[in-house]
Amino acid sequence: MNVLYGNAVVGQSGGPTAAINATLSGIIKGAFEAQKKGVIGTLYGMRNGVEGLLEERLVDLLSEFEDKTKLSILESTPAAALGSCRKKLPKLEENDGTYERLLEIFKKYNIRYFFYIGGNDSMDTVSKLSAFTAENGYEMRIMGVPKTIDNDLVGTDHTPGFGSAAKYIATTVKEIIRDCAVYTKKAVTIVEIMGRDAGWLTAASALPKLSSGEGPDLIYLPERTFDLQRFFADVRKKLEEHPNVVVTVSEGIRFADGKYVGEGIGGTVDAFGHKQLSGAGKVLEMAVKEEIGCKVRSVELNISQRCASHISSRADITESVSVGKNALKAAVRGQSGCMMCMVREEGRQYSIKAKPKPISEIANKVKNVPDNFINAEGNYVTDECLAYILPLVKGEFKVKFRDGLPVHYVIK
Amino acid sequence: MNVLYGNAVVGQSGGPTAAINATLSGIIKGAFEAQKKGVIGTLYGMRNGVEGLLEERLVDLLSEFEDKTKLSILESTPAAALGSCRKKLPKLEENDGTYERLLEIFKKYNIRYFFYIGGNDSMDTVSKLSAFTAENGYEMRIMGVPKTIDNDLVGTDHTPGFGSAAKYIATTVKEIIRDCAVYTKKAVTIVEIMGRDAGWLTAASALPKLSSGEGPDLIYLPERTFDLQRFFADVRKKLEEHPNVVVTVSEGIRFADGKYVGEGIGGTVDAFGHKQLSGAGKVLEMAVKEEIGCKVRSVELNISQRCASHISSRADITESVSVGKNALKAAVRGQSGCMMCMVREEGRQYSIKAKPKPISEIANKVKNVPDNFINAEGNYVTDECLAYILPLVKGEFKVKFRDGLPVHYVIK
Repeated sequence: MNVLYGNAVVGQSGGPTAAINATLSGIIKGAFEAQKKGVIGTLYGMRNGVEGLLEERLVDLLSEFEDKTKLSILESTPAAALGSCRKKLPKLEENDGTYERLLEIFKKYNIRYFFYIGGNDSMDTVSKLSAFTAENGYEMRIMGVPKTIDNDLVGTDHTPGFGSAAKYIATTVKEIIRDCAVYTKKAVTIVEIMGRDAGWLTAASALPKLSSGEGPDLIYLPERTFDLQRFFADVRKKLEEHPNVVVTVSEGIRFADGKYVGEGIGGTVDAFGHKQLSGAGKVLEMAVKEEIGCKVRSVELNISQRCASHISSRADITESVSVGKNALKAAVRGQSGCMMCMVREEGRQYSIKAKPKPISEIANKVKNVPDNFINAEGNYVTDECLAYILPLVKGEFKVKFRDGLPVHYVIK
Repeated sequence: MNVLYGNAVVGQSGGPTAAINATLSGIIKGAFEAQKKGVIGTLYGMRNGVEGLLEERLVDLLSEFEDKTKLSILESTPAAALGSCRKKLPKLEENDGTYERLLEIFKKYNIRYFFYIGGNDSMDTVSKLSAFTAENGYEMRIMGVPKTIDNDLVGTDHTPGFGSAAKYIATTVKEIIRDCAVYTKKAVTIVEIMGRDAGWLTAASALPKLSSGEGPDLIYLPERTFDLQRFFADVRKKLEEHPNVVVTVSEGIRFADGKYVGEGIGGTVDAFGHKQLSGAGKVLEMAVKEEIGCKVRSVELNISQRCASHISSRADITESVSVGKNALKAAVRGQSGCMMCMVREEGRQYSIKAKPKPISEIANKVKNVPDNFINAEGNYVTDECLAYILPLVKGEFKVKFRDGLPVHYVIK
């Protein structure tokens, strides 16, 4: 084995999740072990991803977490403890000096290991950086570590962060179903769930059906064209069966002409003359009110979907820590230019194996909900789909509370 | 003591909460004891409040919960297990036979005890029914048991259901603050919280300040007139201090002319020509975008505020059970025409005493957030306010999970 001595750096990028800090914790745990073996000097955290790295805004994470009990608080803290950014590195052929600047910083801090926790854009950063450092003969191990509530990365069975978001969504939809059931008057409740291109999170709203036989009545994913007349017919049919109809929809559902449902039907203009993007839920609320005339309301689950770590999935947090730790170990073993993936093993019992895969197979691709996970009518998910999601939401992570509220770890 | 032998009936009315079933559980527990003493034959549950009672839709609760372990599941089930209604009894002078019909049913089922769990409208029902049965010489013990997330009933230190809603709101706002802190770009996030007339729930959003020094930047309650220019000035000042400004507002904030902020500025019309009620958060989002021009978003916490029992307050659930049980005991002792109130005892240590108070002192009055709980600028709550709310959110009720989701009890 070719041992590469030096320091490491880790950053978080893209939208926050309830599990991205658990992955950070895993990388820190891995770094402590590598430090003990004398391979890694220290692990720097870049503030606000590559944006902060370029400004040398670094924090020494092995000092910050010298008291390792702090790591379990970090694991139940939502959002990115190091801060995040939306910065994409320029194409190599359009390099404006950014890559040279990064290389300068790597040399200055003797950084030989680079870990980037994020979604598709972050994998793109990992890919470009790997190419640049290789071309310039600077030996470095660069690893992507997946994170996104959207579960839309290819190469991995699922993404860290998805399980906790799915658990929050399924729990909340179950509670909304309870709430809706109290009155006898006909009413439709439309719940809008995150997911621009992939319907994974909306699919998770069906989980209550599995645990107690009561799920939403109808589910619409962006993987299927949304037809307003068919939707009205579906809702009318359900209203005949029972008075309280609950529908979940992805924010990204579109009409046959490719237009997002959330852009509105006919167009809504606010007092300032701006075209208002109401969101799919609100638009369908207005449409049902107009067409069917019963009581209707819409609920947008909004950003809690990605930060409600008070109800994070123990399976998700445990795996997120483990993915981080394995990414560090793999890099020490010599892997580079890879994303640390999770492979579901065959067999009745759910089990996951960590496996690094080349970034080139992963970056800039989207994993949609497959056909066999959606029913023929395009208005529900199948049992196969639920069997896939179920193990990811199992178990409750033990969150520490103080004065009635969850304790969060803040890196000052 | 004048012992009154007979059956009892209990109903739930008004909007659901995370604690209304805990109160039902308390009444059931009290009824089991009274049954053992031979005072009460059984306890009926009316489906959908007085609406179902008038149709004799009753369920025998002592049979339903013969296995008492079911009661702890009931206590962590949100919304009204018996169903709810919005029905108000007619005024006695406008009686259309409703009261005679109720009396007939009471006689048919030998009902001598009547418990109604609800908010202001429910206390009004208790009041009218007490007057009618007294006038007609039918001996009956009629008790109101408070329930409302709004905490706006007079006579009681606080209302069952408020603590759990406050805990959900404070936790969610804390998570949103974390989420907002990840980027370096100036942004304003406006969180809209329930409360048409009273600002109690919005006040609770300040709790993270107490537990970790980080609360929302600005808080606006309906108890103060909302001034748009002062709001812009407040937000600008906060944006100079740090980039991620989080504002919480009550849905019921109004301008000086009495118009709700949520009705819009200038008026928004949807594609069908309907005036759109955007809600206070959405309206302020548009206003900040127009006036300040930075990134803005609004989040409506919506119905989870009243049904998120996966994070209910242990203090709230324990008290809610106890209020129910005490209401039953008080009725057996001879009380009638009362609401079971909670009185906070003097002293450093928080403690509560149950005390029945005459409905006439309570019904149709609103308890607002008092002046000393709001700062001079009208854009935050005081430490006194937080000291009042804190004990109500303390502790986490142990919720049972199965397959990753909370287990709910459904009365078939």
